[in-house]
Amino acid sequence: MKIIKGSVTAPQGFIANGIKCGIKKGKLDLALIVSKMPALAAGVFTSNEIKAAPVKVSKERIKKGKAQAIIVNSGNANCLTGKKGIKDAIDVAKYVSRSLWIAEEDVLVASTGIIGKPLPLDKIKSAIPKLVKGLSRTKERQAAEAVLTTDTHPKRIAVAINIGSRSVRIGGITKGAGMICPGLATMLCFLTTDADIELNALKCSLKSSVENSFNAITVDGDMSTNDMVLILANGLARNPKIRYQTSEHKIFNDALNYVTSYLAKEIVKDGEGATKFVEIKVNGARSSVDAKKIAKTIANSNLVKTAIAGEDPNIGRIAATAGAAGVKFNESRLDIYLNGRKIVSGGNVIYRDKIKLKDLLKKKEIAITLDLDSGRNSATVWTCDLTEEYIKINARYN
Amino acid sequence: MKIIKGSVTAPQGFIANGIKCGIKKGKLDLALIVSKMPALAAGVFTSNEIKAAPVKVSKERIKKGKAQAIIVNSGNANCLTGKKGIKDAIDVAKYVSRSLWIAEEDVLVASTGIIGKPLPLDKIKSAIPKLVKGLSRTKERQAAEAVLTTDTHPKRIAVAINIGSRSVRIGGITKGAGMICPGLATMLCFLTTDADIELNALKCSLKSSVENSFNAITVDGDMSTNDMVLILANGLARNPKIRYQTSEHKIFNDALNYVTSYLAKEIVKDGEGATKFVEIKVNGARSSVDAKKIAKTIANSNLVKTAIAGEDPNIGRIAATAGAAGVKFNESRLDIYLNGRKIVSGGNVIYRDKIKLKDLLKKKEIAITLDLDSGRNSATVWTCDLTEEYIKINARYN
Repeated sequence: MKIIKGSVTAPQGFIANGIKCGIKKGKLDLALIVSKMPALAAGVFTSNEIKAAPVKVSKERIKKGKAQAIIVNSGNANCLTGKKGIKDAIDVAKYVSRSLWIAEEDVLVASTGIIGKPLPLDKIKSAIPKLVKGLSRTKERQAAEAVLTTDTHPKRIAVAINIGSRSVRIGGITKGAGMICPGLATMLCFLTTDADIELNALKCSLKSSVENSFNAITVDGDMSTNDMVLILANGLARNPKIRYQTSEHKIFNDALNYVTSYLAKEIVKDGEGATKFVEIKVNGARSSVDAKKIAKTIANSNLVKTAIAGEDPNIGRIAATAGAAGVKFNESRLDIYLNGRKIVSGGNVIYRDKIKLKDLLKKKEIAITLDLDSGRNSATVWTCDLTEEYIKINARYN
Repeated sequence: MKIIKGSVTAPQGFIANGIKCGIKKGKLDLALIVSKMPALAAGVFTSNEIKAAPVKVSKERIKKGKAQAIIVNSGNANCLTGKKGIKDAIDVAKYVSRSLWIAEEDVLVASTGIIGKPLPLDKIKSAIPKLVKGLSRTKERQAAEAVLTTDTHPKRIAVAINIGSRSVRIGGITKGAGMICPGLATMLCFLTTDADIELNALKCSLKSSVENSFNAITVDGDMSTNDMVLILANGLARNPKIRYQTSEHKIFNDALNYVTSYLAKEIVKDGEGATKFVEIKVNGARSSVDAKKIAKTIANSNLVKTAIAGEDPNIGRIAATAGAAGVKFNESRLDIYLNGRKIVSGGNVIYRDKIKLKDLLKKKEIAITLDLDSGRNSATVWTCDLTEEYIKINARYN
């Protein structure tokens, strides 16, 4: 696998664009990604009980496993907007389909931004001709920028793998959540590939990649009303078709996993007010569900996150949070490591040198590893620290 | 029921004291509450998998339903301290029992403060004679002060009720959690009463009072390693004995409920960096467990709490958080009220006047009410807002 330039237009037969349609003042806020021919499509959507209109529309449309374009607006979530919201999302797709001369059902829609405001349909409608006209392979950066909200920079990646004698490419763009964990603001990710692949193999790859990446940065059930990850596969690489559970599927899977993990880490690193990247690994658990539950509870603890922000060697908080995760374990078998240094052994704090602990916490990347010594299962979760800047951003968002 | 002066020494036959033993610089850090005769005792302890040594010791000792004294230190949690920690907790109780000439098993211990440091046993040992010597009915305020950590003021209350022709009193002191919700720092509460009451009636009253008060300000399973609520009942009011599930039991129950609710609200109002008190009520749920789950998820949402701190009318966050609680409900039946004003109706945001919404949020007490319209069950949870001050306190705690 090789990392290559670009993002969603790196695979053959994809074009994109991003422009200002006026939802956000002076910023790009409307993106479009198009495959030159109808592509296989798969998606993963928010598990929130409240689902934004574009989620409802795209979730329904993707059931047939086919799509050709994705239209995305930022600045307005089109959520809690009732039947009018649904109609608006369908209308946006309709304008795109007419402008592109493609089937209306092959257009997927996504939104991110403020909840509870009607979508400014006129602004979007009148911007679509310009958006379509500017579509090109080089405009992927503008597309990546137009989907952002409080992110400080676009998040893009593309990779190439060999399947048979053909080069297959996967590209992706993503936007971060205002709140990375538990992830209540919107996480969007759009992936493209020119791989020729069976639909069930594509779906399976997407599901497992999301589990190891975006679902490792957000709490179970705590997704936004607008979260979605979409992939389009147009087969233009003309590789021998990737079939379910073959060695080629494994290669594709690993590459997709790399792409989503990279983008997920990018989201965490660009978390609102974040100054540090934190990897939390739980080993020796009875099940991987238990391990993930503990890792996520630690990753979401304000006390742990503020301690890391302040480089405050308050190690007890990690153990206390682990114990509060609702997973049974034996305290007297618990070991905790901070950046490789053992600080809790058999339930005892054994490393108390404040100055050296502070030094460990001065790093930009913090690794917290717990060993429960009660099984063979592991999980890893990524998060960031919690700073005053986060509060500033979120107390004055609207 | 009448609110009276004082706290844990308001009931007959209780004395208390609080002094500086040197764990915290220049602050009271050692408290003692004593009944003049052995009392019935009941307790509720943290559900954290990691339990501090004093929790283990007191939990074991209270099984016999009897105790006479409670010794509490602040500044050190005596947690993650292994076998030595257990021995230290037992030794502290032993010193108290010898100084008071009471049975060693009748002394309960509690601690709050930094996790992972050995208890400074010598300091405590040498302070105990002075602590015991100063015991009096008037020193309850010092006791209330000595159990605090980051609280800004002591939290005390006492009430009187009539049982038969006798006046029965209940008093209590509490300390807040650094982090009120999800409540990972320590919550301690010590209650006394001179009621003559059956042990199972006392236990039942304590359990239900805690459920409606302290458990309504902290997330399920997310308690600290040191949390405990203890009650001593010495019977000196000489009232006709309160028997299980009689009308007298109901009177006692209501009074205890009042005391614990008052103290729980005091904790929330004095939350680290808190500027607002928030009551979250969920109505129309299929079960009270569902209702509480949604209320707590909202109460623990950083996005909701920062919006309230910033008086930012970002109402969508409340709905999004409710939807992420892992409880199934029908979005199109959801109503949300902010301080009595209906802002979401049938899943639509209907009230969008930013200026009026901001005015609603300017109040010191915020009431958020959700109606799921899918059942008859309710729950109420209390919380506070999340401010930059909170981060400041917790990034530099150690």
